[in-house]
Amino acid sequence: MLRAIGPALGAFGVCATITVCALYVTKSTAQSAKEGEPQAESPASPIYGITIPAGYRDWRLISLNQLAGGNLKQLRAQLGNDVAIKAFRDGKLPFPDGTIIAALHWNQASSSDNDKVLAIGFPGAGFQSSIAGSAQNVQFMVKDSKKYAATGGWGFADFKDGKPGDEALHKTCFPCHEPAKDRDFVFTHYAPGP
Amino acid sequence: MLRAIGPALGAFGVCATITVCALYVTKSTAQSAKEGEPQAESPASPIYGITIPAGYRDWRLISLNQLAGGNLKQLRAQLGNDVAIKAFRDGKLPFPDGTIIAALHWNQASSSDNDKVLAIGFPGAGFQSSIAGSAQNVQFMVKDSKKYAATGGWGFADFKDGKPGDEALHKTCFPCHEPAKDRDFVFTHYAPGP
Repeated sequence: MLRAIGPALGAFGVCATITVCALYVTKSTAQSAKEGEPQAESPASPIYGITIPAGYRDWRLISLNQLAGGNLKQLRAQLGNDVAIKAFRDGKLPFPDGTIIAALHWNQASSSDNDKVLAIGFPGAGFQSSIAGSAQNVQFMVKDSKKYAATGGWGFADFKDGKPGDEALHKTCFPCHEPAKDRDFVFTHYAPGP
Repeated sequence: MLRAIGPALGAFGVCATITVCALYVTKSTAQSAKEGEPQAESPASPIYGITIPAGYRDWRLISLNQLAGGNLKQLRAQLGNDVAIKAFRDGKLPFPDGTIIAALHWNQASSSDNDKVLAIGFPGAGFQSSIAGSAQNVQFMVKDSKKYAATGGWGFADFKDGKPGDEALHKTCFPCHEPAKDRDFVFTHYAPGP
């Protein structure tokens, strides 16, 4: 059985090291809808050799979360390919080879337009809406129990503006996921629909 | 062109009236993965006669947002059927008949498991992760320019635990969306993938 309440640190934890430092580097092209369309090719992540999976933006939603601290505030969504979604729903552990989990991170932005509506129409006072603003980075966990045997069967990748982070960054991924060993190193739980 | 930065109050605003009052009514069965699977039939919403669309939990992600105020704190995801996703990506307004937008609302929950990992492994101090906890409600906007001509071409529905809210609640939906008239009454903008 899967639980909706539980840890869901994006799909990743420490991998976001560089992200933290680059919070206010907005992505000027993030305004274009074309960006949301499937990407075909990208450079590969160091250590693991993972490229951005084509069509990942079309994958189904696993869960979402917020990461906040200091000047950082992100809204995050975890999407899964078909293998991942089936495994989450079946409560299958370990995740089968072929599982890919994508963690999409956006900088949380205020929305004055929404807040105006809340002010005039919403019950009670002081409600605020904040939204997925500029895109920050996207991370992937790829399950291949043979290829990635040294890291729990998972390969990791972190991309910003389509470019992978460096080797030092990618060395932080697996150690951070080790505390979730009893859940096959995955923090995110499936969030059932309301 | 669609923008990632902009209003995205779930898909809905005032429709969440009852939600506000029922924040701490947790859904005991929300822990089961079965809940995440497609629902086939449901009672219909008053005024608009909309039932829960089968398979909505499998729809693709449009964007996400947070609503906070008083004792309420929700993480929200907006999903779209194929017609909706195509329209968002093409920047097509008004949305074509057949568009359905789903707004899924979860009560935002802290995650001590995640926070432990953040404390030992994450750069900087004081980071906190919060996740999609208990499911709160789900809302739908259904485009049918003839059937719903009196309300901008949109029908509305709000469900909690599979049951629609009452008529008074559903009367609040359209007036709240009127400020977004220049975007065909839809607050949510498409969030391109990072």
